[in-house]
Amino acid sequence: MSEKPFLWRSRVRFGDTDASGRIFYTSLLDHFDAAGTEFMRHLGLSYGALGDVAFPRVHVECDYTSPLVFDDLMDIAVTVERVGRTSFTLAFDVSIDGRNAARGKLVIVTIDRATQRAIPLPEKLRAALCA
Amino acid sequence: MSEKPFLWRSRVRFGDTDASGRIFYTSLLDHFDAAGTEFMRHLGLSYGALGDVAFPRVHVECDYTSPLVFDDLMDIAVTVERVGRTSFTLAFDVSIDGRNAARGKLVIVTIDRATQRAIPLPEKLRAALCA
Amino acid sequence: MSEKPFLWRSRVRFGDTDASGRIFYTSLLDHFDAAGTEFMRHLGLSYGALGDVAFPRVHVECDYTSPLVFDDLMDIAVTVERVGRTSFTLAFDVSIDGRNAARGKLVIVTIDRATQRAIPLPEKLRAALCA
Amino acid sequence: MSEKPFLWRSRVRFGDTDASGRIFYTSLLDHFDAAGTEFMRHLGLSYGALGDVAFPRVHVECDYTSPLVFDDLMDIAVTVERVGRTSFTLAFDVSIDGRNAARGKLVIVTIDRATQRAIPLPEKLRAALCA
Repeated sequence: MSEKPFLWRSRVRFGDTDASGRIFYTSLLDHFDAAGTEFMRHLGLSYGALGDVAFPRVHVECDYTSPLVFDDLMDIAVTVERVGRTSFTLAFDVSIDGRNAARGKLVIVTIDRATQRAIPLPEKLRAALCA
Repeated sequence: MSEKPFLWRSRVRFGDTDASGRIFYTSLLDHFDAAGTEFMRHLGLSYGALGDVAFPRVHVECDYTSPLVFDDLMDIAVTVERVGRTSFTLAFDVSIDGRNAARGKLVIVTIDRATQRAIPLPEKLRAALCA
Repeated sequence: MSEKPFLWRSRVRFGDTDASGRIFYTSLLDHFDAAGTEFMRHLGLSYGALGDVAFPRVHVECDYTSPLVFDDLMDIAVTVERVGRTSFTLAFDVSIDGRNAARGKLVIVTIDRATQRAIPLPEKLRAALCA
Repeated sequence: MSEKPFLWRSRVRFGDTDASGRIFYTSLLDHFDAAGTEFMRHLGLSYGALGDVAFPRVHVECDYTSPLVFDDLMDIAVTVERVGRTSFTLAFDVSIDGRNAARGKLVIVTIDRATQRAIPLPEKLRAALCA
């Protein structure tokens, strides 16, 4: 929904690789975790500042289109793909020097920490995601 | 394709959890890694024994349907969902005491370690997956 | 302090390895996490059952004496090395087929979850560790 | 041995935390991995550029002196503590806003990838570490 995607750069750590010499598939998703937090900060939000709300991920998916290896400097573009009533979807586009390497998404639900039940997105979050 | 799914039990480690008190979403996928290896062993195969073949994951997806917390003993059912020419798909069904907690899948490609290009599934692997 | 060490077996996962082909050094420590939990269970305790106490690790150390690779089946012997007033030390001895591969230890403090301050070991825990 | 330590900043990711709300102890060590790589780059070196040499860690230790929580921005100071014939030691000092939070070290051995045996530090590496 933003015109120009938020970009966050992150390096493949040695510990992210596996014995095949490539990044291990779950390690890339750990970079999505960091990229998502930075995207929130970019929107003027922080998970921590949203009081009694927790943000469990209820769906993840990722296509790995090209190998990533140790020390690769990844450009991770983060965009809002969908804003629902009690959830939103972030999309992650990973590239190295302009070559696409992976595409993924995360569906995140807003729940009340006390009741552990889904609640509507806080208005401040909805406004920022839709801006 | 097997009538009765292969079952592998695995505990949620303390380090798998995050500050929400639940399992962190990528940590569950690390259990799929272990479950997939055990499933291969159950088929009489091992990634290591398949010589010069590597097995990069090109797609992962997972739906988290119910919270998993520290020390939960997960039943992870592994089944073969699809056998293609140069790839296969494993499905993972996670439950706790019979209650479904997550469902995921991994698409795994067979590549030649030397050329890093996709190759047809080794015959032994294809036969075991289709049995 | 126990005569015969508690033994827990754990496999090196593919995701535990790095591009050198060996286990990544922090991944072995994740196995200590699981081994420590199982050791507690063996003592008739569980971290979860100790009410309002949390167990932060304040010190870790490990010597890696021999390479560990994918699918190695590790024997992890866990022993109590020291029981202090507000902390205790667990030692971990990792071997493969009788050959030593690593030795490590963890110093764990007992704190009150509410105040986040160190408290004396709960009597039940002290008794079990000293048995 | 350098007068002014190399500083690298890194954020505690949500996935780095555990159910106690603090950083999980092995997750901090993953940040040491990244900090060590950046320190090498700062010295004009890269693990990758040192040809047929691998760098297994044979010892790790860390003292956690103060809690680290989600989104903390850590200053990680990296220094060379010791340069031996076939190994070297890096020290890591972690602080938040000037308050010390952890201190650790890694002993790294240089081995020949082909023989997997320890070899003297490559001259270029030794020179850079001693500068």
